[in-house]
Amino acid sequence: MAIRFPRHLKPIEPQGTQLLDQERQTATFDSKALMVTLYGEEYLKKRDEILNILENDPVLGDKNHRYYTGRDVRFQKSLAAGKRFIELLKKHNWTKEEFGIADFLFDESGPFRLHRSMFMPTLENQATEEQQKIYLEAAKRYEIIGCYAQTELGHGSNVRGLETTATYDVNTQEFVINSPTLTSSKWWIGGLGVAANHAMVMARLISNGKDYGPHPFIVQIRDLKTHEPLPGVTVGDIGPKFGFNTVDNGFILFDNIRIPHIAMMARYSKIDKASGDYIKPPNSKLAYGTMVFVRANIILESRYVLARAATVAIRYSAIRSQFVDDASPKKIQNTDGTSKIVETPVLDYVMQQYRLFPVIAQAYACHFTALEMHRMYYENQEKMAQGDFSYLADLHASSSGLKSLTTTLGSAGIEECRRACGGHGYSLFSGLGQFYQDTLPKVTWEGDNYILTQQTSRYLFKTFRSVASGRVSEKNANFSASYMMEYLSNPKARCPITQASDLSNPEILLATFKYRAAFLISKAVHNIDVEQKTWNDMLVDIYRISRAHCQLVLVSNFIKAVFGSNAPASNENSVLQKVAILFAVSTLEQEMADFLTSGYVSPEQSLLVKERSIQLLKELRPDVVALVDAFGFPDYLLQSSLGAQDGDVYTRITRAAELEPLNQKKVADGYEEYIKPFVHGGQGKWKIGKDGIARL
Amino acid sequence: MAIRFPRHLKPIEPQGTQLLDQERQTATFDSKALMVTLYGEEYLKKRDEILNILENDPVLGDKNHRYYTGRDVRFQKSLAAGKRFIELLKKHNWTKEEFGIADFLFDESGPFRLHRSMFMPTLENQATEEQQKIYLEAAKRYEIIGCYAQTELGHGSNVRGLETTATYDVNTQEFVINSPTLTSSKWWIGGLGVAANHAMVMARLISNGKDYGPHPFIVQIRDLKTHEPLPGVTVGDIGPKFGFNTVDNGFILFDNIRIPHIAMMARYSKIDKASGDYIKPPNSKLAYGTMVFVRANIILESRYVLARAATVAIRYSAIRSQFVDDASPKKIQNTDGTSKIVETPVLDYVMQQYRLFPVIAQAYACHFTALEMHRMYYENQEKMAQGDFSYLADLHASSSGLKSLTTTLGSAGIEECRRACGGHGYSLFSGLGQFYQDTLPKVTWEGDNYILTQQTSRYLFKTFRSVASGRVSEKNANFSASYMMEYLSNPKARCPITQASDLSNPEILLATFKYRAAFLISKAVHNIDVEQKTWNDMLVDIYRISRAHCQLVLVSNFIKAVFGSNAPASNENSVLQKVAILFAVSTLEQEMADFLTSGYVSPEQSLLVKERSIQLLKELRPDVVALVDAFGFPDYLLQSSLGAQDGDVYTRITRAAELEPLNQKKVADGYEEYIKPFVHGGQGKWKIGKDGIARL
Repeated sequence: MAIRFPRHLKPIEPQGTQLLDQERQTATFDSKALMVTLYGEEYLKKRDEILNILENDPVLGDKNHRYYTGRDVRFQKSLAAGKRFIELLKKHNWTKEEFGIADFLFDESGPFRLHRSMFMPTLENQATEEQQKIYLEAAKRYEIIGCYAQTELGHGSNVRGLETTATYDVNTQEFVINSPTLTSSKWWIGGLGVAANHAMVMARLISNGKDYGPHPFIVQIRDLKTHEPLPGVTVGDIGPKFGFNTVDNGFILFDNIRIPHIAMMARYSKIDKASGDYIKPPNSKLAYGTMVFVRANIILESRYVLARAATVAIRYSAIRSQFVDDASPKKIQNTDGTSKIVETPVLDYVMQQYRLFPVIAQAYACHFTALEMHRMYYENQEKMAQGDFSYLADLHASSSGLKSLTTTLGSAGIEECRRACGGHGYSLFSGLGQFYQDTLPKVTWEGDNYILTQQTSRYLFKTFRSVASGRVSEKNANFSASYMMEYLSNPKARCPITQASDLSNPEILLATFKYRAAFLISKAVHNIDVEQKTWNDMLVDIYRISRAHCQLVLVSNFIKAVFGSNAPASNENSVLQKVAILFAVSTLEQEMADFLTSGYVSPEQSLLVKERSIQLLKELRPDVVALVDAFGFPDYLLQSSLGAQDGDVYTRITRAAELEPLNQKKVADGYEEYIKPFVHGGQGKWKIGKDGIARL
Repeated sequence: MAIRFPRHLKPIEPQGTQLLDQERQTATFDSKALMVTLYGEEYLKKRDEILNILENDPVLGDKNHRYYTGRDVRFQKSLAAGKRFIELLKKHNWTKEEFGIADFLFDESGPFRLHRSMFMPTLENQATEEQQKIYLEAAKRYEIIGCYAQTELGHGSNVRGLETTATYDVNTQEFVINSPTLTSSKWWIGGLGVAANHAMVMARLISNGKDYGPHPFIVQIRDLKTHEPLPGVTVGDIGPKFGFNTVDNGFILFDNIRIPHIAMMARYSKIDKASGDYIKPPNSKLAYGTMVFVRANIILESRYVLARAATVAIRYSAIRSQFVDDASPKKIQNTDGTSKIVETPVLDYVMQQYRLFPVIAQAYACHFTALEMHRMYYENQEKMAQGDFSYLADLHASSSGLKSLTTTLGSAGIEECRRACGGHGYSLFSGLGQFYQDTLPKVTWEGDNYILTQQTSRYLFKTFRSVASGRVSEKNANFSASYMMEYLSNPKARCPITQASDLSNPEILLATFKYRAAFLISKAVHNIDVEQKTWNDMLVDIYRISRAHCQLVLVSNFIKAVFGSNAPASNENSVLQKVAILFAVSTLEQEMADFLTSGYVSPEQSLLVKERSIQLLKELRPDVVALVDAFGFPDYLLQSSLGAQDGDVYTRITRAAELEPLNQKKVADGYEEYIKPFVHGGQGKWKIGKDGIARL
């Protein structure tokens, strides 16, 4: 018989639902209106339709198993979900965008994800028309299932160091794919461990004795009838990971596998079939455009990550009560009209606000910068189509650093929110544990968050040198060059604030972030060019400079969006203005060492920043529940007992505990074998009285 | 047929084992000698004996399943291990210390842990002799198995808010234990979900209508013959957690359960059997002594946490190579005597050093402070036995803040090390993923890391007021009072450094940390006493002040240990001196905002700190592998493919992948049902050529 909580017991007063209702009533703006501003009506309508399909789907509707089962069960269910998604995709004829919404709501990576997100796009971008006819059409129908095999056991970020070779044999007009060492095993390849029968393999192209570096080749790896590995192929799953265990990340080794000439992706570079001569790609810069797009999407995802974590922690903190704050005790009405003092919701404690509110602000900051990155991406694509590559370097540099900064913020935000939920944050029912585990790879993939910042700073140094040597005119200056010019025109500038309230001025905040970034860049360029420091010795500064630049970008875009001339005059926008100021002030406070070191901010001013930071928390306090509500995450997505829309936290936790497999019997498995021998070992000495106590 | 890697393939040159050997040869000191200094010969001998028993034990020797199985399997194996531990305990007649070593090496919490760590100690400390005869003797023989039930679903840190009641019925001379609400469910109780048949329940004692607050009661909860819950008891497991899933954290509710008068732990407080009158405890301060001891042990554990994470990341970073550092390329000897350039081990990159070396330094800092806390604990116990409670407040305050600081450092350290391992850090084979999950509760339990700092700062404020008002003489001043006096005697003091090398002077560093702590305290006391700020408004400062004080304590104890008159003149100690300086300088750099805000450190000086910080990394570079070796963690403990003693990283990863359940068949389960339908759906259009490629 399964264990059940007594149904007549209620949580202590006041009830969570009641507390959340109050929060919603006292907000100064309409969270639904803000939701529409954020996403648009059309998107929300689509999302609700898709949500409705998923919630009622027999395979995808119930996510309950996710917290209770191990990888064995979860992987099988993930395969089943993958199959079901293909069926739904066909049935509803989902567009890419609609599929993306479904995927987001379902919130679990599966074995077919890389087929869609990397294998097919590589065919779209790098295959010739002939190749697309052979491979892409079949891939679209899932007749072949692919993966993208780049990373190796011994090589990740340094793509040039890949060991796998593809040697052209001009006699047979075939490529020979080979893994010369154990470290050359392809590793981490999503979808490869179990599902894929084809792989897009990045291998060093060798022809006529010359090494042309990594190029993509399509290789069939498993038999299409039996699914067994083809001869010469060693393939399997890389084993358990910290998260993402619903994906079959795999390894593969090739023992001199032969593939035909057509298997090399040949839209750009190619090998002449007869001579084996290498034909170069026309312009390698185009690939950077795609990277910008991918990274803009990562920033948008970071917004979701931060917003989702904040949703859980903010809602739960409005309910979870602890101690009585003597200086300002919380009262509730009794039914007889009198009132009584109850414990204070932790959301009223400044420390909790200080930990959580900046996470909300970061989420909104990512939102506005991601929009701006998308806008600039399209602008740049148009420019490039006209042969104008002048936007690309700046865009690529910012997108690299922003990927690094926002994914670092994202994972830190989840963990901060999880800890701020106290003990129950550690329960999987919080919805934050597995979420953290599945989000973490973002700090490493698509460019390691430390290595990536080198690209950003290298560009900034180059820009600074151009500006400093007068090679950039004010007219030609982009955002980066402009703030460096401002700095150079007045390197002794000082922050003008004299009281805490001055820190509500967006211009002052923006100027502060500009000065700090330019100061750090100027110092670093001096260290490299004059002091002759090595790049290696500068790596710590390089990381910081990228962060400083990208924090400035976030602040700047946020301010432009809510204080700019296009910003609407609405209650929603008034709150967003406060959020923007909080984002700037809390970032300023957290990075205070930089600002003080630059001399721009004085020690006395730094105390004003602290003061303003606490004031802002209080100003935002009435609106924080509505601010997370505006992100509109359905319970189906959150899977959180603590963060559900209705606030019925404690009932939800107990219902979730009832589903624990160990609770399905009165006496759990293992008792007979592992516990009884001891307890019963002394049985003879015990007498169990009618009071229920065993006595000697 | 299981999937196997080709046995003839080796990792790319140079081999990991060779790289680690080189690191060990070039160290400036003997890591074995340092190991003996850290632990003592006797401890190491005992540890090796116990390790030998465990490694060769049929139940405990193989930890392999831990990374591959879900909670179902892991929990059963954890029960089996629990039983086996009881057998070994009896067989080898292990002392508490020896059992602790075994438990540490086995490195997995189980269902009987709380029986030993909380249930029995509560009986030892709070039961009368009569009660001990009934309960403790049986508990020692595992004839009864207990747990410690304090936390409730709705109440953690605020113990006074617990809802469970124990109402004395003077007529029947029984206590009635009751759970009035859903939130009063006892929750998180280790060992309760499945194993325990008794619980030490903290419940609000009510007698003659008066509420005396929480007291401990022993309650039998499951039948000793059938293990079924007793009538009126609802008990079960709270469900899956982020980690610790080998423990059956449980919940329990009592529906007016009656227990006899003897079930209230009565060594201190008690209820008169006949009248129901409450008899107060003689001195409540004694309990604080135990808390100090528990927290000193947590600091010691933080040392292990940091050291273990650093061991994995440092060893792997000496092997993992990435890019060629052009300014200083790495060369290896070919067999023909010539040399070739290979990729640079990431340990040579300054950013990697900057992330990892401070973790080593933190581990050593925790080591020396934990030793000092233990020493002070015993000194204080002696004083208290003589009725002198003068040491207690300071000791308790520091131990609270140090628990908070060192466990926060500990979990941050693991995650930093895990990320610094790049992609493979995300594989469970890194040994850091589950370790992080299992370590995390420490930031919440035994006093939440934020709430706890209030105790520290409250004491520091009180001390400051005493010092400021002249109520403490220099003779009577303890460490805290002394540094506040120094500050008050010269509040305009300034850091004397003029060049980076000045930052090797321990006295200068110590004075810097003292000034900063005193400055923050002085400012906060002013804000509270003069500006009348509420405690709530001060919480952010309160947290920071505790951290500042405890960082000072860590720096001070480290410096005393390695620069003091008792420090030995050895190679080992010379390296530890560098480590101590690195700890101080890296902490100083990381907390620079505080130091700059106080005015003690100038912006120009802050640049010297950065410069010195990078220099120190280079100075320590040759010794870091030996520094982690000195912690002497056996592979049995680490369970890490990346961090094993022999450095054969890539072979270990591939061997571990072979054990993945999905790799035990050529075609994994799920293919027929979820993949084949699509692939075979298009089969008619495909022709599979003899080259293994399917064509239209």
